[in-house]
Amino acid sequence: MQSCYNTSLTTASESKVMAEPRISSIDGKLAEEFAVPSHVEEVKEKMATFARHHDAAGRRVVLITSGGTKVPLESRTVRFLDNFSSGRRGASSAEYFIDSGYAVIFLHRHRSLYPYTRMFSTINMLDALKFRGGEGASSNSGEVVVNQQVLPNIAKALKRYQEVKEGKLLLPIEFSTLSEYLHLLKAAAQALSTIGSKAMFYLAAAILSPLVKDWAPHAFVISFKLETDATILLDRAQRALDTYRHQAVVANVLDSRRGYVVVVTRDTQAELMVTEEDVEE
Amino acid sequence: MQSCYNTSLTTASESKVMAEPRISSIDGKLAEEFAVPSHVEEVKEKMATFARHHDAAGRRVVLITSGGTKVPLESRTVRFLDNFSSGRRGASSAEYFIDSGYAVIFLHRHRSLYPYTRMFSTINMLDALKFRGGEGASSNSGEVVVNQQVLPNIAKALKRYQEVKEGKLLLPIEFSTLSEYLHLLKAAAQALSTIGSKAMFYLAAAILSPLVKDWAPHAFVISFKLETDATILLDRAQRALDTYRHQAVVANVLDSRRGYVVVVTRDTQAELMVTEEDVEE
Repeated sequence: MQSCYNTSLTTASESKVMAEPRISSIDGKLAEEFAVPSHVEEVKEKMATFARHHDAAGRRVVLITSGGTKVPLESRTVRFLDNFSSGRRGASSAEYFIDSGYAVIFLHRHRSLYPYTRMFSTINMLDALKFRGGEGASSNSGEVVVNQQVLPNIAKALKRYQEVKEGKLLLPIEFSTLSEYLHLLKAAAQALSTIGSKAMFYLAAAILSPLVKDWAPHAFVISFKLETDATILLDRAQRALDTYRHQAVVANVLDSRRGYVVVVTRDTQAELMVTEEDVEE
Repeated sequence: MQSCYNTSLTTASESKVMAEPRISSIDGKLAEEFAVPSHVEEVKEKMATFARHHDAAGRRVVLITSGGTKVPLESRTVRFLDNFSSGRRGASSAEYFIDSGYAVIFLHRHRSLYPYTRMFSTINMLDALKFRGGEGASSNSGEVVVNQQVLPNIAKALKRYQEVKEGKLLLPIEFSTLSEYLHLLKAAAQALSTIGSKAMFYLAAAILSPLVKDWAPHAFVISFKLETDATILLDRAQRALDTYRHQAVVANVLDSRRGYVVVVTRDTQAELMVTEEDVEE
């Protein structure tokens, strides 16, 4: 069965007709059908302040969405429709954008991977800690140090993390449900529309990314398309560009997603491949 | 809408008829309908060795299941049906069982909370680390220590974690999908059936818990029932006991789940309540 990450709330046939009139109607119904989280206005103000500050300092600002998106199946719910996503792409991309001089708003799902800490996500932190003076220290109050044999890159990551924190270059915003995601994405787009073309959207958690262009018309928007069928990949990416008026679509195929992507713009297609060793890193 | 965590793969009406003939047929079809994970035999042998070792040392062994359970919606899948569960109950229960002299097999979902580290799950580890000799150390190779102002209980947790590891009292086994969960649960039940009534099952991730009694007929089995409607709670718990032949059902209601449970056995009902302060702890 073919599946399409970018439109995982609609069937394939629905997504084909999801053109502009439909988009506006979704936008209009957003507040009506999805409860507005109580903290949206506060978060929006925080994001606007962040954007203005970095714009004034000559920095561009990118909003990265990251992680899967849960949809509750009942009103008082214990069950969800979920999609797979550890948030690896979003978290690592945030680091690269910061290294390239951007300030980053990181709109990520609760418990998805996080910039800088993502490197240690597979390790149980307690396995990487030891008491000073060897194990089996008899008191509960000894000094606890990181065993850098277990976490060889921790000093470098910590240093960079502290620099980024010091420079206030990363604004993390968390969501859990689709409803929160939608309202926070809208708020972010509106907050960033004040800096016009200095804003970029990098939609690694791509549900309803079409709407962004309506909310922040001058921003540079990059979205993602994951297909299971390689033969329709370019066609779908091109159609997404046309329909959603994004500047670039990063497209790949499920089976080879860690080794191959093609970056599609209106006029260009650039293929990128990485080796197994790159993937390991 | 009423929902029932214990049977989240079936509708309410289906669950009513899920009596013994149905159970046997599910068991029979397990390997047929859910692919057997390649590592099941290896894990089963590990669990059997663990059980025999602790049985010989005079310890009882409890299998704890923990975390939500994903069900893939397609064969090559990016979408899942999921249920909410951080794994808090399973992870904290594991600590209490170990403190009470049990050895614990911890069958938990990937990324759910983990014994001892669960206390620090809301904290970004990099926020809790610092370089020796203050921040802003200029090299990448300095010593990294835990800031015990940020993690005041880390020394105690680390000490206990190291004792438990040293004593080999905790055997963690990880699953991601329903298919893995089912086969690993069956393997665990069979591995523990060798120690008969010295084995206990504590099914905090309760999907298809009915089957356990068939796989390990002499074990003591505790399962959980979460309802949204308080008026049917006891009736449902009692029916689960009758149908599944478990020894105890821990039942609670969604809205008050952190403050109230009732432990139902064939002859007794014991209510337990905790205050808001207890919940905070």
